[in-house]
Amino acid sequence: MVAPRVIRLGEKFGLFKEHWKPKIIAELNDSDLKAVKVKGEFIWHHHDTEDELSLVTKGRLTIKLKDKDLQLREGELVVIPRVMEHKPVAKEEVELLLLELKTTLNTGNVPNERTAKAEWI
Amino acid sequence: MVAPRVIRLGEKFGLFKEHWKPKIIAELNDSDLKAVKVKGEFIWHHHDTEDELSLVTKGRLTIKLKDKDLQLREGELVVIPRVMEHKPVAKEEVELLLLELKTTLNTGNVPNERTAKAEWI
Repeated sequence: MVAPRVIRLGEKFGLFKEHWKPKIIAELNDSDLKAVKVKGEFIWHHHDTEDELSLVTKGRLTIKLKDKDLQLREGELVVIPRVMEHKPVAKEEVELLLLELKTTLNTGNVPNERTAKAEWI
Repeated sequence: MVAPRVIRLGEKFGLFKEHWKPKIIAELNDSDLKAVKVKGEFIWHHHDTEDELSLVTKGRLTIKLKDKDLQLREGELVVIPRVMEHKPVAKEEVELLLLELKTTLNTGNVPNERTAKAEWI
């Protein structure tokens, strides 16, 4: 059995600078916990069979839905249900945690040049 | 489809005072995200088939394992693998998030008077 280690979010976010490339920092059951930095506009997408949790740890994130915008600050989270179209937008850099099933693609139903396979850090 | 809502951790932790009684604040896929306040010593226990993620959002938490102690502060997390015996201890009150499968009992393999069915807040 692998010995559990304490994972420091501040340390993990200090290990990378690129945007929109989620990094796996922990795994449990069928899920990955990922750290990601975002800035600018992502694409509209949805996940067919997976709900997705986003917890903002730094900055202000907008998640556009088809009928409204969600505004998240540090210490705020949202679960986007499967199938729901959404588009993250950040004027300034935002740091957030994503909790997703291991099968989840960041661009959901839209594999394209922004599709990023998450790597461990 | 239920419209997603922004969940504020500070607001959720303000809704209760009791210790060792996890409250569900979000669900996704087969998992629940829970907020819990702890102080004092819990019991030794393990979860037979579920890994458990703990993220400290306030205070300092010790998680005793059979061969060492893990020390967690705000912004630090750990995944306790299934089957591993552990015992949380907090000298002063700690606020933390738990991510668990919906099937997880807080006292794991030891149903007793401290077993608490998580309620939504």
